[in-house]
Amino acid sequence: MRIERLCVIGVGLIGGSFALKLKQLGLVDEIVGYGHRVENLEKAVALGVIDRYETDVTFAVKDADLVVLSVPLGAIGSLFAEIVPHLNPKTIVTDAGSAKDSVIKDIVEKLGDCPPNFVPGHPIAGREKSGVEAVEADLYQNHRVILTPTETTSESAVELVKSLWTSVGANVSLMAPAFHDEVFAATSHLPHMLAFALVDMLNEHAELGNVFQYTAGGFRDFTRIASSDATMWRDIALHNSTALVKWLNEYQAELKQLTQLIESKNGPALFTLFDQAKAARDQHILNRNTDI
Amino acid sequence: MRIERLCVIGVGLIGGSFALKLKQLGLVDEIVGYGHRVENLEKAVALGVIDRYETDVTFAVKDADLVVLSVPLGAIGSLFAEIVPHLNPKTIVTDAGSAKDSVIKDIVEKLGDCPPNFVPGHPIAGREKSGVEAVEADLYQNHRVILTPTETTSESAVELVKSLWTSVGANVSLMAPAFHDEVFAATSHLPHMLAFALVDMLNEHAELGNVFQYTAGGFRDFTRIASSDATMWRDIALHNSTALVKWLNEYQAELKQLTQLIESKNGPALFTLFDQAKAARDQHILNRNTDI
Repeated sequence: MRIERLCVIGVGLIGGSFALKLKQLGLVDEIVGYGHRVENLEKAVALGVIDRYETDVTFAVKDADLVVLSVPLGAIGSLFAEIVPHLNPKTIVTDAGSAKDSVIKDIVEKLGDCPPNFVPGHPIAGREKSGVEAVEADLYQNHRVILTPTETTSESAVELVKSLWTSVGANVSLMAPAFHDEVFAATSHLPHMLAFALVDMLNEHAELGNVFQYTAGGFRDFTRIASSDATMWRDIALHNSTALVKWLNEYQAELKQLTQLIESKNGPALFTLFDQAKAARDQHILNRNTDI
Repeated sequence: MRIERLCVIGVGLIGGSFALKLKQLGLVDEIVGYGHRVENLEKAVALGVIDRYETDVTFAVKDADLVVLSVPLGAIGSLFAEIVPHLNPKTIVTDAGSAKDSVIKDIVEKLGDCPPNFVPGHPIAGREKSGVEAVEADLYQNHRVILTPTETTSESAVELVKSLWTSVGANVSLMAPAFHDEVFAATSHLPHMLAFALVDMLNEHAELGNVFQYTAGGFRDFTRIASSDATMWRDIALHNSTALVKWLNEYQAELKQLTQLIESKNGPALFTLFDQAKAARDQHILNRNTDI
């Protein structure tokens, strides 16, 4: 496995960190970047994340062995449609979108089918930081990457993308797109909504004064994900809305039940709920050695 | 300000860290511990957290200048009633309960009034760890301690307790008990409920398999407070139920609104909500230098 030309569309934290590590490992000869802001692309060249850039996306993908679409969820489908006439037959394309069903549907809608050499992907390495300045070659070390091939996806394309992610240190899993969206709605998209909602609510209640001044480490950690990028999370909420709304409703039912336990002063049931939650977290999260 | 005899009732993380630091600073001559488990008290002596212990609480408080009640919320009122006949007129008593109105009401109910030398307190230094093994002399460094004197509380008693907390590194604020309970219901008790509820919900949904395996750093931080002690949080939920239920209901209204924005695919409103939350958090939490 060796990539002569890698094209990164959207040179930020996610695509940039992937490219930089591949280059450091000597697995790629040339990295071409594309993005809307020339200033950012020049910074990426200066930081050694890409070798050169193009300001026309149809030139950027020319003769690439692999194209990585690390752009907002809402832009993936139309970008794909734009580049498709300019791809070599051998070019493999992958993306880094946090929702997968909507990306695949968007591509099918625009192209009529999901091309065999498109490998839908989702690297799990969110940070509050974003942009090319935040690039870290070891970002994916011990992190998960999920690939969600469809029935039409080429197995060799999946193998190539999988081996590259493995090379940069990631632990790669395959999942059906819809299952991926359910799992990440529950474990990632929902918690982000909950954190944004809490900070928003407290921010709107002026009668308590600046309540943030009374918060400590627990609150800081709980709301860390509310410092994430608003554009990205708007896109995720819109593109994984079905699964996310389902889990938001499940969660509201859970909260209603918990509120009733408190109102009825049901100490034993509250203890059981808290104790089981603590036990589950301690078992699955606290005692885990890595971020995988 | 110098304490000849300090009595710590409940020698765990909270009372033990306070005592240890006062001793290291040379501000206290003798520390007497009391608790239910002799094994724990012996460990506290071995660790140098207390000088000696008593197994009868009425002996433990004898001739103490200051008694610290660092016991579960539900136990404070009855312990207070038990020790009151054995206190010197000069003895000052303070507690470390996370809710204040219910503690004060409980004491008034048992004693007929809230004694002038009782200073209700709440050190904001929660940890998932608890017990005397977790004691840290610098636990309160740059942390807040809230004191909630009532109309009958003696000013000199407040001054003494305040100066001791300040000595161990804490930043002390005074608040009305009911305002304290509102603020901490919103900023601490509510987030704990939200974290417990999320882990509980995911733990109950077996159809997703072990979803915890797909979580990353964001989830780990978001749910860190769900690894807190179940007994303590049952007591807080029961003892600050009115304010907590109020904020749980507010939060459910906020979630309902957010869910509607997602269902109606209102991208601009979602962006505004996330962006304002991020800005508020970045301003008040992320860019704060200390835990105060």
